[in-house]
Amino acid sequence: MITSTSNQKVKELLQLQKKSKSRNQEGLFIAEGSRMVGETPKEALVKLYVSETYYKKHKEELHKADIQPEVLTDTVFAYVSDTKTPQGILGVIRQMNYKLEDIIERENPHILVLDNIQDPGNMGTIFRTAETAGATGILMSGDCVDLYNPKTIRSTMGAIYRMPFLYQDNLPETIGILKKSGIHVYAAHLEGKNTYDQENYLQGTAFLIGNEGNGLRPEVAKCADIWVRIPMSGQAESLNAAMAAGILMFEVSRQRRQ
Amino acid sequence: MITSTSNQKVKELLQLQKKSKSRNQEGLFIAEGSRMVGETPKEALVKLYVSETYYKKHKEELHKADIQPEVLTDTVFAYVSDTKTPQGILGVIRQMNYKLEDIIERENPHILVLDNIQDPGNMGTIFRTAETAGATGILMSGDCVDLYNPKTIRSTMGAIYRMPFLYQDNLPETIGILKKSGIHVYAAHLEGKNTYDQENYLQGTAFLIGNEGNGLRPEVAKCADIWVRIPMSGQAESLNAAMAAGILMFEVSRQRRQ
Repeated sequence: MITSTSNQKVKELLQLQKKSKSRNQEGLFIAEGSRMVGETPKEALVKLYVSETYYKKHKEELHKADIQPEVLTDTVFAYVSDTKTPQGILGVIRQMNYKLEDIIERENPHILVLDNIQDPGNMGTIFRTAETAGATGILMSGDCVDLYNPKTIRSTMGAIYRMPFLYQDNLPETIGILKKSGIHVYAAHLEGKNTYDQENYLQGTAFLIGNEGNGLRPEVAKCADIWVRIPMSGQAESLNAAMAAGILMFEVSRQRRQ
Repeated sequence: MITSTSNQKVKELLQLQKKSKSRNQEGLFIAEGSRMVGETPKEALVKLYVSETYYKKHKEELHKADIQPEVLTDTVFAYVSDTKTPQGILGVIRQMNYKLEDIIERENPHILVLDNIQDPGNMGTIFRTAETAGATGILMSGDCVDLYNPKTIRSTMGAIYRMPFLYQDNLPETIGILKKSGIHVYAAHLEGKNTYDQENYLQGTAFLIGNEGNGLRPEVAKCADIWVRIPMSGQAESLNAAMAAGILMFEVSRQRRQ
């Protein structure tokens, strides 16, 4: 049992929790809580850590599943946990490794392209909603928030394990590849000419979604085939980025169900 | 200029920021930032507080608008502010005072009924999205999170000033009144028989939206005319409550625009 916060493994866990650089160097991330750990694909789980209390409660279960977790005292677990009320279980997990083909070469693609999304909660909600709406993949500009940060992981509600995704340094180039593959590319834009529900999304579809405050960068927006607008009532000037993405994706879902 | 955190006015501001009880006793709340203060209806603004730095920068503006703010040193302002990087301006504002008739007796009502929504950010996003989708009012169970808490106020993006709303202690009774007024009441429910987009929302419409973790309470859900379901792909079990509300409200908006 690890009893000290100066233990080397504890230091490594803390780095993985706090630093996107450490996560990317090691190719690892941390998922906390029994639900998130339970949904981890077996081959991706590198190591399991539990608190002393959790271990005492679930000893037999873990033994039956042939899992040998590392046990931390409750205090040390709380020290490495990213949550205020830790459940006492966290997994060190291998980062996913998708290729652009995994995302493009699907039957009837339904893709999100995220340009500079900054809020970790928004990013997680987008993943969760995308899975629910039947989206087939998510592409992100290199300067989007790190998907592997603990808050985002939590808000994906497990969708991170199931939704193919990829960071791309050059979005205009990537959008060009989507278009060459016959995918229609729509920019969600306040200045869109058509409202989003006037378009036909039965064919391969990709939506460009911009930053929370500033929207799409002009050099990204101009790559779209069409700009579409979500009509807005009242004096509100915009929707939350995750909400806008959800409304567009559920319109695709609606049309494809008819 | 107020220079001490033990000043009586400072203590009162802090109570209004932190305690829902104080807010309700006084019938007041606080909105921070130039945007939120700028959108406040004039008759609702009780008092304006600014930081010393803000005052120096905007002295003439304030003078022209015939506004005499109370000035706090930057340190005292930071002390009463609810944000990490205060803009240096906050308003003490009179709480709104709507009646049920204000919400029901609209042309073609489009109403949300929220049952035990707990997350302040969700609540704010629901208000912001409702305004955008053209909803006409929001009813909330008495145990929903306090709408006037600083985080919710911020996330409404000003919609709190424009969207009629009312807390109701007895939702089943209120839903009965809606139905008597000819409003069709739909429960958003995982066990809904019809998908949400099979219904016709051209007539008066109200959606019942449940708690983030537990959904609608059975005694509330059973009051609906119809249970509707948002079809979900993948392994996700549910949508975020604000997202579900947004998808339903934008379907109303879509149908009413046709």
